[in-house]
Amino acid sequence: MPSSRVTQADVARHAGVSRTTVSFVLSGRKDMRISIEARQRILGAANELGYRPNLTAQSLRTRKTHTIGLVSDIVASTHYAGEMIQGALEAALERDHLLYFAETGDDPKVEEKLLQGMLDRQVDGMIHAAMSTRRSRRPGLSHEHPTVLLNFLDESGDFTCVVPDEEAAGAQAVRMLLDAGHRDGIHVVGGHHFTAKTPEGVHAGHERMRGIEKAAATAGVRLSGVAECDWSTPEGGYRAARTLLDGEADAVPTAVICCNDRLAFGVYQAVSESGLSIPQDLSVISFDDSELASWLSPPLTSIALPHHELGRRAVSLLLSGNLKPTIHRIPMPVRRRESIAAPRR
Amino acid sequence: MPSSRVTQADVARHAGVSRTTVSFVLSGRKDMRISIEARQRILGAANELGYRPNLTAQSLRTRKTHTIGLVSDIVASTHYAGEMIQGALEAALERDHLLYFAETGDDPKVEEKLLQGMLDRQVDGMIHAAMSTRRSRRPGLSHEHPTVLLNFLDESGDFTCVVPDEEAAGAQAVRMLLDAGHRDGIHVVGGHHFTAKTPEGVHAGHERMRGIEKAAATAGVRLSGVAECDWSTPEGGYRAARTLLDGEADAVPTAVICCNDRLAFGVYQAVSESGLSIPQDLSVISFDDSELASWLSPPLTSIALPHHELGRRAVSLLLSGNLKPTIHRIPMPVRRRESIAAPRR
Repeated sequence: MPSSRVTQADVARHAGVSRTTVSFVLSGRKDMRISIEARQRILGAANELGYRPNLTAQSLRTRKTHTIGLVSDIVASTHYAGEMIQGALEAALERDHLLYFAETGDDPKVEEKLLQGMLDRQVDGMIHAAMSTRRSRRPGLSHEHPTVLLNFLDESGDFTCVVPDEEAAGAQAVRMLLDAGHRDGIHVVGGHHFTAKTPEGVHAGHERMRGIEKAAATAGVRLSGVAECDWSTPEGGYRAARTLLDGEADAVPTAVICCNDRLAFGVYQAVSESGLSIPQDLSVISFDDSELASWLSPPLTSIALPHHELGRRAVSLLLSGNLKPTIHRIPMPVRRRESIAAPRR
Repeated sequence: MPSSRVTQADVARHAGVSRTTVSFVLSGRKDMRISIEARQRILGAANELGYRPNLTAQSLRTRKTHTIGLVSDIVASTHYAGEMIQGALEAALERDHLLYFAETGDDPKVEEKLLQGMLDRQVDGMIHAAMSTRRSRRPGLSHEHPTVLLNFLDESGDFTCVVPDEEAAGAQAVRMLLDAGHRDGIHVVGGHHFTAKTPEGVHAGHERMRGIEKAAATAGVRLSGVAECDWSTPEGGYRAARTLLDGEADAVPTAVICCNDRLAFGVYQAVSESGLSIPQDLSVISFDDSELASWLSPPLTSIALPHHELGRRAVSLLLSGNLKPTIHRIPMPVRRRESIAAPRR
């Protein structure tokens, strides 16, 4: 687009002064005596012509581009992408930075190309993001440039990481059910997310389960059971709930903790088919707080992923000028709705 | 990040040649005679030191930055953002361009600041995107720079626009129900989306309704009715369906066209409460094809928003070097599932 660009030479011509004088005035330098009248004429001409500083030339001098790069593994398959990116954009805008955004599709070659493309354009810093929290196994990460890992938990201890506090959220789910009067009838649907595709489980699964188990142990309560299943569709939740509800009456749990809202949706479908009611017959609490949670009937209590805050924090830390290799765990807020009540038994 | 940057001077020192020679070799110029041996030594040194061209300096010469700007109204509140951005990123990557991404939150001041920020960084072109299709009313759009409007329908006829073909999708919904044997029992839930907040209706509503009405007229069929309601939650669909199902038996429609999947979700809830079945008692077809559609029981037939293709097309057009002020209407693909059957009556 530079063809129509107004240059300092244009401003000089318009104001009838030398280009050097224009350059001094427009860059705010004070080490050359220029009359107030000439200064005003130059500023007036710049304004009239719509002159804008050439940041490309400027960044060659200042070595700052006021840009940051955000490289993510994948955005399209998730609902939550938007909020994380929105948080990052908001924090960047507040600090007058623009954001390059790119997606690797989890392909290391694409990642290297994108990374190099951003470094070639001399971004002031980089954020590596994952759309769901995972451990970093990438040896390619550079220590040379200011870098923040967003939703990545780095094992090396060399990077600044920003992740949701999943363990605390798991514990919170148990405490909310205990507060409502539930004891040994608490069942977990979803578990660690061990499947053929995720044989090691997923990070969120491990952390949520750890929190759930610790909080239960602290309260001296035994979980009624854990149904391990695939988190990616409501199907697993539906089947787990059918099995529970078809069992012997005194073995039916009083509450289920669903590892995400999709599974909770499946549980709702099964409960509705059984002619039972939520929360009267079964309390349900879930994680993620997708839009679905507020659409269900009754609306579902869910512990939200703090995506907006994750995005904001990553950018704030990156531009703080004081990056330390620390793991920042962001609290997951509870959205209280109508799916929890005291148990009947 | 330029502090650790390897310069051509470093390469020259390492290879024991002049900086000019390095510059000629690395920029691929042929108008200076350089021995094969020196050329190889320079390329070897560049490789060894990890030299990368300084694109900031290069773009001052070439007047091309190989970057484009994508400014959207809002991403966070929508599920679909991800796919549109993914399509744009994919097309940009294929053409070795990086993408600045920003969001205005629908604030004209923020928009101007972001736009100016991108022009200051000399993007090669701009995409203005809306997350749901709307008519453009912004006088601020510049004709000076290569610009594509994504999901914006511009009335001036001066811009290249890329939008989903909503009218064709509306007609398609009717034809699918006709093909299944439905005639005068087709009801529409959602309509133009006239509400207190959207008194003029929304673009997608008008276009879908136009397609629905034209296709019905072409087939000589009268719609059983149109329930205008808010599209933003399942509530309107639920209430419309309750009213229909509680009416006189011979006035109950045989099929409903829901203007989006949320409304269809509400219709499913009402049908389930009435002890009726989809599709045996009522066929349902919807628009948008959100994740919800495949989770419902039975899975919902929905006509998808072609977000990925919208994003791809916008970038392809922008970088085609041959932008014409045309409206490109992208077909909306049908996702056939199990919510349509022949009518009982």
